[in-house]
Amino acid sequence: MRAVVKKEPGKSFVLEDVKEPKIVNSKDVKLKILKVSVCGTDLHIWKWDEWSQNRIKPPQINGHECVGEVVEIGKEVKGVKVGDIVTCETHIPCGVCYQCKTGNMHVCKDMQILGVDRDGVWAEYAVVPEVVVWKVDKKIPLKYVSVMEPLGNAIFTATSFDLRGKYVLITGAGPIGAMAINVAQVSGAAAVIVSEVSEYRINMAKELGADLVINPMKQDLIEEVNKFTDGHGADVLLEMSGNVKALNDGINAVRNAGEVAVLAVYKGNTISFEMNTAVFKNLTIKAVTGRKMFETWHIASQWLKYNRLKLDKIVTHEFDLSEFEKALQLMNEGKSGKIVLNVAK
Amino acid sequence: MRAVVKKEPGKSFVLEDVKEPKIVNSKDVKLKILKVSVCGTDLHIWKWDEWSQNRIKPPQINGHECVGEVVEIGKEVKGVKVGDIVTCETHIPCGVCYQCKTGNMHVCKDMQILGVDRDGVWAEYAVVPEVVVWKVDKKIPLKYVSVMEPLGNAIFTATSFDLRGKYVLITGAGPIGAMAINVAQVSGAAAVIVSEVSEYRINMAKELGADLVINPMKQDLIEEVNKFTDGHGADVLLEMSGNVKALNDGINAVRNAGEVAVLAVYKGNTISFEMNTAVFKNLTIKAVTGRKMFETWHIASQWLKYNRLKLDKIVTHEFDLSEFEKALQLMNEGKSGKIVLNVAK
Amino acid sequence: MRAVVKKEPGKSFVLEDVKEPKIVNSKDVKLKILKVSVCGTDLHIWKWDEWSQNRIKPPQINGHECVGEVVEIGKEVKGVKVGDIVTCETHIPCGVCYQCKTGNMHVCKDMQILGVDRDGVWAEYAVVPEVVVWKVDKKIPLKYVSVMEPLGNAIFTATSFDLRGKYVLITGAGPIGAMAINVAQVSGAAAVIVSEVSEYRINMAKELGADLVINPMKQDLIEEVNKFTDGHGADVLLEMSGNVKALNDGINAVRNAGEVAVLAVYKGNTISFEMNTAVFKNLTIKAVTGRKMFETWHIASQWLKYNRLKLDKIVTHEFDLSEFEKALQLMNEGKSGKIVLNVAK
Amino acid sequence: MRAVVKKEPGKSFVLEDVKEPKIVNSKDVKLKILKVSVCGTDLHIWKWDEWSQNRIKPPQINGHECVGEVVEIGKEVKGVKVGDIVTCETHIPCGVCYQCKTGNMHVCKDMQILGVDRDGVWAEYAVVPEVVVWKVDKKIPLKYVSVMEPLGNAIFTATSFDLRGKYVLITGAGPIGAMAINVAQVSGAAAVIVSEVSEYRINMAKELGADLVINPMKQDLIEEVNKFTDGHGADVLLEMSGNVKALNDGINAVRNAGEVAVLAVYKGNTISFEMNTAVFKNLTIKAVTGRKMFETWHIASQWLKYNRLKLDKIVTHEFDLSEFEKALQLMNEGKSGKIVLNVAK
Repeated sequence: MRAVVKKEPGKSFVLEDVKEPKIVNSKDVKLKILKVSVCGTDLHIWKWDEWSQNRIKPPQINGHECVGEVVEIGKEVKGVKVGDIVTCETHIPCGVCYQCKTGNMHVCKDMQILGVDRDGVWAEYAVVPEVVVWKVDKKIPLKYVSVMEPLGNAIFTATSFDLRGKYVLITGAGPIGAMAINVAQVSGAAAVIVSEVSEYRINMAKELGADLVINPMKQDLIEEVNKFTDGHGADVLLEMSGNVKALNDGINAVRNAGEVAVLAVYKGNTISFEMNTAVFKNLTIKAVTGRKMFETWHIASQWLKYNRLKLDKIVTHEFDLSEFEKALQLMNEGKSGKIVLNVAK
Repeated sequence: MRAVVKKEPGKSFVLEDVKEPKIVNSKDVKLKILKVSVCGTDLHIWKWDEWSQNRIKPPQINGHECVGEVVEIGKEVKGVKVGDIVTCETHIPCGVCYQCKTGNMHVCKDMQILGVDRDGVWAEYAVVPEVVVWKVDKKIPLKYVSVMEPLGNAIFTATSFDLRGKYVLITGAGPIGAMAINVAQVSGAAAVIVSEVSEYRINMAKELGADLVINPMKQDLIEEVNKFTDGHGADVLLEMSGNVKALNDGINAVRNAGEVAVLAVYKGNTISFEMNTAVFKNLTIKAVTGRKMFETWHIASQWLKYNRLKLDKIVTHEFDLSEFEKALQLMNEGKSGKIVLNVAK
Repeated sequence: MRAVVKKEPGKSFVLEDVKEPKIVNSKDVKLKILKVSVCGTDLHIWKWDEWSQNRIKPPQINGHECVGEVVEIGKEVKGVKVGDIVTCETHIPCGVCYQCKTGNMHVCKDMQILGVDRDGVWAEYAVVPEVVVWKVDKKIPLKYVSVMEPLGNAIFTATSFDLRGKYVLITGAGPIGAMAINVAQVSGAAAVIVSEVSEYRINMAKELGADLVINPMKQDLIEEVNKFTDGHGADVLLEMSGNVKALNDGINAVRNAGEVAVLAVYKGNTISFEMNTAVFKNLTIKAVTGRKMFETWHIASQWLKYNRLKLDKIVTHEFDLSEFEKALQLMNEGKSGKIVLNVAK
Repeated sequence: MRAVVKKEPGKSFVLEDVKEPKIVNSKDVKLKILKVSVCGTDLHIWKWDEWSQNRIKPPQINGHECVGEVVEIGKEVKGVKVGDIVTCETHIPCGVCYQCKTGNMHVCKDMQILGVDRDGVWAEYAVVPEVVVWKVDKKIPLKYVSVMEPLGNAIFTATSFDLRGKYVLITGAGPIGAMAINVAQVSGAAAVIVSEVSEYRINMAKELGADLVINPMKQDLIEEVNKFTDGHGADVLLEMSGNVKALNDGINAVRNAGEVAVLAVYKGNTISFEMNTAVFKNLTIKAVTGRKMFETWHIASQWLKYNRLKLDKIVTHEFDLSEFEKALQLMNEGKSGKIVLNVAK
């Protein structure tokens, strides 16, 4: 079958013919992949940055975001059947650790990630355990199903708090930040304030209807938030930029007893953080990773089924799988929202 | 000044000239009333039903929903100043009981209600303690400010739970039920299902964009909910009808581990309730009264300020104060949403 | 192997020799049962009451509360190994329904209960799916492990709310109510008030250190609670009696904005419930069944491991499995706390 | 009257005769102070450190922790009467800002602190607004009432999370940390692990019954926590040391999806914080200041009334007010728990 493979160390992926995977365990599910999408992690692996060098063991099929059709199931699989349209949680939990047994399998102690710790889904077929398979309504457009995994990041982060009637400040409007803008709107925010430096992303934020977009290279974030909110401050900060100054400015722009969710990874082991400010303000800070399995997936499914989101403004490009390099290049330049790659003809 | 007064026992209100109230305590606020609105409670008092006969002590100025302008303040008032546009929480808390000291002054042990336990606001002026005065943004249309108190009931009920991605079933689409439809939509519900018997209200629910409207006189509520949700059941029930069958059918239409909020008063001291069903389903039931002071008011203010609601479909009539009988009559026939009465010219 | 079997309709169980069960699925676990314990449900099935007649299909091995040793595992089992000491959640979830996928498998849509819908554990061996097996620390006394399932009911009910500093009223001090007294104490209640009519259970409540024990046959519950709490009322009601008057009196004894958890089944399809009182008080009511899988089990394990509970006052008798009739008789007379039956010599 | 006064800049307090304060506003309450206690803040002001130099404006009566008797009330005071025994919240809120109106007056936007921004309570009399006066049961020993304010810090921090069945790690066992040990025990923690460097405090922690006390100067905190918890990690971290390494080590000792509360002020504007670790672990972090008004006070009152705490092990010294220097000296050397000063004979 066709697959995009990290063949060897260095900046490259190769599209080549590899052996079709087979069902091994009684709860395995085999998928015919229909579409996949491109994540920042794919970019890291493609570029072969320091993180990739330490974590990835080539050769390995790349990719984790996908939509597929079930074509075969293991003999104890009960949740899906052949013909179902599904997507996958990309974090494969062990199922038996404390976290897995108490509602937090997304931070399983012994996690494997698709396309990172094992073969991924940028291929014509993939075999995954039933536990990560998520069935969707067939009327949801396939390209939106493919991006449900990063959409889940946005939803998990934004559902950390009740946003009804709130001023929600989002620092960083990359693809997941853009999704978070829309999620905050649908969650009943009074107004969404965005901080972003890239012109492409500033435009996407505006098209999504952000109530105020601040460019912190040109404006003072704290001042602008205070002005917009008549001195009230932001009620909630969703920090999605991975920029330490954005985080600290955000903390300063949030009101006393406000709430902060951080879905970001920062350079270095430690960051220079204004903890005293957080203390004197009595802030609640949620440090977020992954997606709640499967509460988050359910919310995503329901909103897509009832057409509550504006993913048309966020999924900006669609290419054939063979054009993966063009997609990675475009994303690298910050000139895209989410990019979907078509696998099946 | 002009005031609508419950003059004596019996079905009547009288519009007459009464003495203007004066500031007595250091934290009193005097309001020039601009608009008031009509509530079911006004109807009960007008008709002089059993509840009214036991509770109301005529003569007394009627009414509790209003919008006004601050015209004078007591000498220790700090939160508002002359010229501010305000509305009032209608439950006047004692300020010193356990509930008042721990965030639940809306169920103060020693509460007084405007227009019920003391003179109300259907008059040209009213004096109220600062604690219940709520300042609003001047760009919110005054007629919407007047109905913020019942809107607060809808918001307090609907914010009992996170509605994001959920099937929300609302039984009863009177004015507050109608507001709850809109609040559920703004709160991120996947779909709002309404159960209502009155044609006028069925139409209002549809105009508000309810995804499914069931007439339980003609259809089986539980069956329709299961059909619409593919057997999932409603995630959340907001019972606002005061009808015992609606409550029990609603409980049966909710999924296991679902959530129920009840903002309703039922006939009789006890009702025939399917508690075993609630137990086997592991339901959470919030019995709701009033509005959270002042979290709910803040949400209402913010949504109105940023124009997130569709109150234009719910505030259906506007009359002069002198036309109060026409308003009460119309409401009595169930042929209206909220009705606003203009006090100031 | 030896097993206590519901052989046929009618009031009886039979101790007889039956075939040892075998591992069938890849995730099955075979247990050598060490001890079992007696639940009210066993009593119902023994007596062959109406519920049993409709639900149980003899012949079937009885029993669901147990402690055992793992003696064999299916080929895909990862969470336990031969030699582990374990107990079982008695509700076997399907694993794929909405409830199972979102943290509520205890109210799975397609549940099977041990000893009710399939062979139980009052036998020398049992085979159960890995998903319900719960490994425990070997230093916890085995008889306490056997009663962890009903202890879990008490914990799940009492952990519905934060009890720190609260007046906790428990109506009904049967075995699970008695456990709830202890759980409320360990949870930081300021004082635990118990309502109970049986002398045996009143004594058990007192020995457990309940701060006030009311006999509602002789005293007025509401009055006594108000007297004890200086008019504050109970903050939390845990209703565990299945008595409608206890529930309604309890609701009236709870303060405004108080909290209620109901772990009880009432006679009849509906009960006569004071919903208006609940509404005007703005109560939160949790209707509870089963145990949270596996948050509740973990709490139970930890408290037992660190010896925080007084189960010695609640597990009152220990017999050989063959003496099951004596145990059932004793329990039927209300002359016991929990009774443990020894299976292995 | 006698009062301990910060007379002028520099390391000193002076006990001198000053004018008795008078009731000014309609809601003022005049207290005869019975006992006061010594806080770290008093030490800062005494020593005249950088923070004090920027914040305190001498001359000013020092002190904020106290117990007193109401001797006079303003004409609109309703919550207390002459003869009541009371203590005070030391943060005086404005009552009208957003935080004050929505349950967070402890982080009021326009707060004044007793003994910091206005005259304090180390004196024979004090006048405070009714809003901060907290009435207590007369059977609680007066010296424990005096320390209810810092006890409230410990309770507010520890009630950030449900501690039932949890491994609670407390870094820093000064007086508030010691109180937190006891609060965690009463809250149902399975085991309390303490990290502390001072021998005096290590002993206090042990006397309070901490399950494990680690000296991070001699042992590796993360390793010891993992060993004690069999690799599970701490469920909850309460960081009360103000030491950055304690915070970061604590974060590393906490399990995935764990919870962290920080009641501490760190040197410098920013700290070097392992945010990525927090993100990958999906931690919830509560940055805490003050006490919830008045939920926290109520819990403290109830536990003291029902004798659930071991303050006898934490209030270690009692002196006459005139011996304030001895008390400050002792505290400065870390050779005390809480110290109480007797004002009234």
